This record gives sequence, structure tokens and C-alpha cells, in this order.
Amino acid sequence: MDYQRVFNQAIDRLHAEGRYRVFIDILRNKGSFPNARCFAGHNGPKPITVWCSNDYLAMGQHPAVVTAMEDALHDVGAGSGGTRNIGGNTHYHIELEGELADLHGKQAALLFTSGYVSNDATLSTLAKILPGCIIFSDELNHASMIAGIRNSGCEKQVFRHNDLAHLEELLAAANPDAPKLIAFESVYSMDGDVAPIEAICDLSDKYNALTYIDEVHAVGMYGARGGGISERDAVADRVNIIEGTLGKAFGVMGGYIATDQTIVDVIRSYAPGFIFTTSLSPVLVAGALASVRHLKASSAERDGQQAAATRLKTMFADAGLPVMPSTTHIVPLMIGDPVKAKRISDILLAEYGVYVQPINYPTVPRGTERLRFTPGPAHDESMMRELTNALLEIWDRMELRLAA
Amino acid sequence: MDYQRVFNQAIDRLHAEGRYRVFIDILRNKGSFPNARCFAGHNGPKPITVWCSNDYLAMGQHPAVVTAMEDALHDVGAGSGGTRNIGGNTHYHIELEGELADLHGKQAALLFTSGYVSNDATLSTLAKILPGCIIFSDELNHASMIAGIRNSGCEKQVFRHNDLAHLEELLAAANPDAPKLIAFESVYSMDGDVAPIEAICDLSDKYNALTYIDEVHAVGMYGARGGGISERDAVADRVNIIEGTLGKAFGVMGGYIATDQTIVDVIRSYAPGFIFTTSLSPVLVAGALASVRHLKASSAERDGQQAAATRLKTMFADAGLPVMPSTTHIVPLMIGDPVKAKRISDILLAEYGVYVQPINYPTVPRGTERLRFTPGPAHDESMMRELTNALLEIWDRMELRLAA
Ligand SMILES: Cc1ncc(COP(=O)(O)O)c(C=O)c1O
Ligand SMILES: Cc1ncc(COP(=O)(O)O)c(C=O)c1O
Repeated sequence: MDYQRVFNQAIDRLHAEGRYRVFIDILRNKGSFPNARCFAGHNGPKPITVWCSNDYLAMGQHPAVVTAMEDALHDVGAGSGGTRNIGGNTHYHIELEGELADLHGKQAALLFTSGYVSNDATLSTLAKILPGCIIFSDELNHASMIAGIRNSGCEKQVFRHNDLAHLEELLAAANPDAPKLIAFESVYSMDGDVAPIEAICDLSDKYNALTYIDEVHAVGMYGARGGGISERDAVADRVNIIEGTLGKAFGVMGGYIATDQTIVDVIRSYAPGFIFTTSLSPVLVAGALASVRHLKASSAERDGQQAAATRLKTMFADAGLPVMPSTTHIVPLMIGDPVKAKRISDILLAEYGVYVQPINYPTVPRGTERLRFTPGPAHDESMMRELTNALLEIWDRMELRLAA
Repeated sequence: MDYQRVFNQAIDRLHAEGRYRVFIDILRNKGSFPNARCFAGHNGPKPITVWCSNDYLAMGQHPAVVTAMEDALHDVGAGSGGTRNIGGNTHYHIELEGELADLHGKQAALLFTSGYVSNDATLSTLAKILPGCIIFSDELNHASMIAGIRNSGCEKQVFRHNDLAHLEELLAAANPDAPKLIAFESVYSMDGDVAPIEAICDLSDKYNALTYIDEVHAVGMYGARGGGISERDAVADRVNIIEGTLGKAFGVMGGYIATDQTIVDVIRSYAPGFIFTTSLSPVLVAGALASVRHLKASSAERDGQQAAATRLKTMFADAGLPVMPSTTHIVPLMIGDPVKAKRISDILLAEYGVYVQPINYPTVPRGTERLRFTPGPAHDESMMRELTNALLEIWDRMELRLAA
């Protein structure tokens, strides 16, 4: 057994497919995001503009968030020093869970170290508590949900993306007495389309299934208080479990579920991924608390983001660039080839100081490689103009096709 | 299918076994740890002394750590805003990975959002990359390693705790051509004993197995630079993968592996738990960087901790309290019953302002419930005296046995 050879082969496969990843070494400039610095390589060090951040509303630099983190740092220190059960349950955690429960109109909420862990831990534990459970999973569900479902060891039925007829077909064919869970997202982050939540809940009622929604790319950004698409569509009370992140629109780090008290109690008591890990740093929790509170009261960031996204989509479309039919704040350009996507991204960074990461397999299916832009309230008209011109110049140079 | 009933039954089982967990609502006082405040309940709000923190060296309040976090917060903001591949790879991450690789004398290191995730993601991915892999796992391994091994779907062989003869028996019986990985801890955190690392590495050489060590309860605390037991025993170069946390002795939050460049490249490219999640907040990374650097250069905290642990063990033993035979900084008192352990802990908190969490199943095997004390450099002689007297008073009141 030659371990080194097997590991090298695994890496070689990535190079051969043109999807070996090089992480771009950056630092953001607090107070002037999306401006940032990139370090060595790419003709750097030099200033850049970030076009692919998931700090969608620039809350990571919001004074209320920064001040809250600073205060917590000075009051209680860096880390929590323990798991939630053993010394790591701070008053901030309890306050934030209360705030998140309120945000989604649920009885309770539970924090995890990340959105990934919240999906993995909750889904895998729920399905174990419900013997014989069948999980119905949208085919485009995020890797963290797929991990949770696989790790539960339960039966999984995959329905075609947002396809209600297919979902119903699968529900109708399943044993009526088996526990069932429908797992899906609200905003699908690589395409920018949205699930028909209400219709899915109608099916869950009809077939007595629980519903689990990942609102990671919607919390903070949709609904009058930032409760996500389920708030916007006034269906939050019909979804059993709402999952979200503190690391995207809220600008910090961490994940959570909001649901019934009993389900929170079950997950908190049985999920290894919740129990056996140092709890979120109180510094992060304090920052997230300030961010959630701010976005409950203020819609200016949401409005700015929607305006920027609409503007950029229009500019891309007018220029003939292959913008995908997103109905949300996400602006993807379809490239369809990992090598070309990486090459465009490399030129943008090296020559134009524009940072947008190519998205390749396994994040999206092979053959649908793309560039994914996330304009926010701080991306202004002149930045968009420069970006569009840069892309047109590269399209020309690489002899790529524009729409007529 | 009555979901509510199934969930309620799951909770009822915990109550029936006396192991339903109530999280104590606390805030630590930066600058005067182990002093803290507890909120409602337990005759609170009131000041308490924390005896069960895993911020072992009180680095969570160290000025170098706090200042570094503050600087990062002001320079780049709250969160990273992306996964490592998509906008979340900051210069701090790269610096800390370099520092950790150096700490363990390895080519490279890789950060994860927690120690739990580093174990889960690395073990599950490694075993998938090595088809037919057999993992040999110490029976007392932590839940996060168990999760990673189970999630890999590979064959698992459990060897009796620290039992070299049993490990060799299992290795010898396995297919000589199959890839093999031996997974174990250095300091076992609930008993405080230590693995025979060198002898395990001898076996790994003999049977051509990879070795994976969890040094979560040793990094920062053992070895001249805080490289863990593998540094203290001068065997770091013989272990293939060293895993650690930034959330215990380093006082912040996060996890990592240190290993060969190729293995880092494989995990970073193939592990969903690394790829599909927002990277650690740069604020945490900056704090951890300062902490690792400080503990590389300073042994004062380590010496203080060892002196405090020795002192407390002696005091407990002299008083006839059932202190377990730990050879490390961990000081467990065996109770052997979940209800009694919780009752002692409740009295300590309500009447004496002493916070020590009872440790019950599933964290330790049933029938070995215990109180686990973690004295650090900031726990002084008079605190220890008060603690011992409080315990003696409770032992008397509850008619528990003392050693002769
Ligand atoms: C749909 C979806 N769910 C969950 C996650 C994980 O959230 P987090 O970054 O907080 O781990 C992500 C992205 O990272 C995501 O895109
Ligand atoms: C042995 C061991 N490994 C791993 C972990 C997980 O580390 P973290 O708290 O950073 O998730 C813990 C405790 O939490 C542990 O005790």
C-alpha cells in the first residue's frame, strides 16, 4: 500500500479536470468593503474589488456589529471555553436564540458553530429519532444537507429541483405510516431561484410530512424583518424547521435552527455535532445579535441590495453577457467550462483588480461552471460599469459568444 | 405518525435516566477569570468561580489575544464572508496555518471551523480516498472521531483503550494489503490519561498503517512550545496527522490538522465539511494566531497549570475524595451516578458559587458519571481550599463515602 501514490492520484485528477483550487489570499478593508487587498500573485499585492462575497449586506463592517463584538471581547474575552453543556453557555447565546426564535415566529432556536453543522447535525439526528424516516430531498440541496441525510442512514428520495409533481409522486408512493421529512432550500444560491414553499407545505400537510427549509441565502435579506423567503411569503408558521446562517447576510459566523421547543430540546440533547464541540465564541454571538436586531428594524440594506442586483442583471443582459435567469440577489453568468471560467476569473483579478471566484464541480454540476456575482448595497454604478466593460473586453479576447 | 409523541418520548427518556441537561447561563469576567457571573436560577444572579472551563490556560483573556482580535475586527470586520475557496481565504488564515505547521514540525496545516469538524471531515474523507481502508480506533475516542469514522462508511476495528497488545492483534489479523489508519487521542479528556504514542507508531510502522492523533486536550499545554504530547515525547515526526483545537488551551475557537502537504491538499480539495462552509472569522483567526505564538514562547502558563493540577489532586486525595488516577492537568472525581453527580453540582453552584458541570452519558460511559475539575494558572490555593471544604461538607450531608 503506497499511500503517497494514492493521495497524489487524487490531486492529479483535479488538475486533469481543470478544477484544482487555488485560494486567493485577501484581506477586506473594513469600512470600505467591497474594497479589499490581495496579497502575492495576480500582479499583487494590490487593491481589489470583491464581487463574490456572501457578506451580502456588508454587515460584517457595520458599526453596530463591530461595536457589539468589541464590547463582548472586553467584557468576557475571546472564546466560550466549553461546550454548551460544560461552561460554554453564555448569556449571549441565550439572548441570540431568543432573538432568532422571534425572527422566525418560532418557539425556540438553537445555535451551532456553522450553517453546515446545523444542517448536518439536525437532519442526521432527526431521522435517527424517527425510526423508518424517509427524507425527501430537492436534487439541488446543499452539500451540508446531503451530508446530514447520508449520515442519518435513513432512506432518501430525491425529487427533481422544485418539481412539485415529482415530489407528490414520491410522497404518494411511500408507506403512509412512515415518518417523512421534506428538506429543501428557499433561495438556491448558485442559480438564484426560489422554492414554492407554500405548495410544498400543502403537500406536507396532505402526506403528514415534516418540513425542513434551508434559508441560508435568504435570512436577513427577504421579509420585512429579514426572516427570509418564508417571512416574505407569510408561510413561516407552516414550515416545521427553519435553518439559517449567521455567516452570510448577518456578516459574522455560525448557524441555527428555529422550530418548536420540543424539537430544539431533542436536537440539543441528542445531536453529537451540537453536544461535543466548543460553543460559538461569545464575541461572534454578540456580533450576530447586533446584526439580527439591526436588520429586523432596517430595510435600507435589503433595498440597496435588491436595487444593485437588478441594476447589474440589466447591465449584463444589455451587454449580451450570459446572465442566468435568477429571481433573487444572486447574479450568475453561465460559462459551462471549468478551464474557461477559471481563466476569466484569473484575468479579472490580474488585470482589472476584480475578484470573482469561478464556481466549479462539486459546487455546481459539471458543464454548468459559472461566475457568480453578489452585488450588495455598497457596489455602486461605476463599479458595475467597470466590471461589465472588463467582461466584454475578456469575452472579445477569448472569443466567447455574446447574445445578439 | 404522531411526531410530537415520538419527540416527547425521546425527552422523557432523558428525564427518566436523570440526564436531562440544563445549561447554566453564565458570563465570564475578562481579566479576572475564573471569576464569572451566573444569571437566573441557582440563587443567582451572582458571582461564581468556574472550575470546568477548557480555556485551560486562561488565554481567552490574555491581552495579546484580545488586542489581536480587536485589531483584526477594526482592520477587516466581523466575518470572512465566504468559504475558503470563494472569498473567505484571508491572509490571517494563511499565516495561522503556517504557524501551526511549524508548531508541529509538519509541512502544512489546514483550518476548520472547529475541532469537531476537523476530526469528522478529515477522517471521513481520508477513508474514502483510500478504498478498502480499515480504521483502528481506540474505544475511548471522542464523539467527533467516531462520527468521522462512521461517516466514512469504512471498516472500523475498535481496540481496548491504550491496549497495545489488542491493537497489534487486530492489525496482524487484517488484510496486509488494505490501507490502514490508527486513530487515537493523546490526552483522554475525561480520565486524564495519556496514549503510548511511540509504541503505537512502532506498530504503525510494522503494519504499514497511517497514524492520526487528536491532541485537542494537549496542544498549548505540553511540549516546550505547546506542540502537545507528541512534542513532549519527541514523536511528532512519527505521527502522520496531528489534529488540534483553537478553542481550549488557545482560548478562542476553531480546529485544525497539521500533516504532509499532499494530505492537506487532498482534504482541502475533497472534504465537504471543509469546502462548503463559511471560513473561520478572521477575528478568531487573528486571536488564535496571537495565542499560538505566545504559547510557543512562554511556558509560564503551562507551568502554572501543572502546579495547580498537582496541588488540587493532592488536596482532594488528602481529604479522601475519590479523585481518579489522572496523569495530566485534568482532575476528575468519580461519582458513578448521574443523579448524585447532578445534585452535588447543583449544591455547589447554589450554595457555594462553585461551577462544575456533572459529566454524564453519553460523554462518559453510564455508571462512571463524574465531576471534572480543570484547575488552571489562575486558580489559587485559597480557591482550592474553599472548594475542598465545600465538597467535604456536601459529602457529609449526602452521606457519601470518603477514602480512609
Ligand atoms: C445553502 C447553504 N446551506 C448551508 C451552508 C452552510 O452555511 P455556513 O457557511 O454557515 O456553514 C451554505 C454555505 O456555506 C449554503 O450555501
Ligand atoms: C478529544 C476531543 N476532540 C475534539 C473535540 C472537539 O473540539 P472543538 O471543541 O474545537 O470542536 C473535543 C471537545 O470539544 C474533544 O474533547
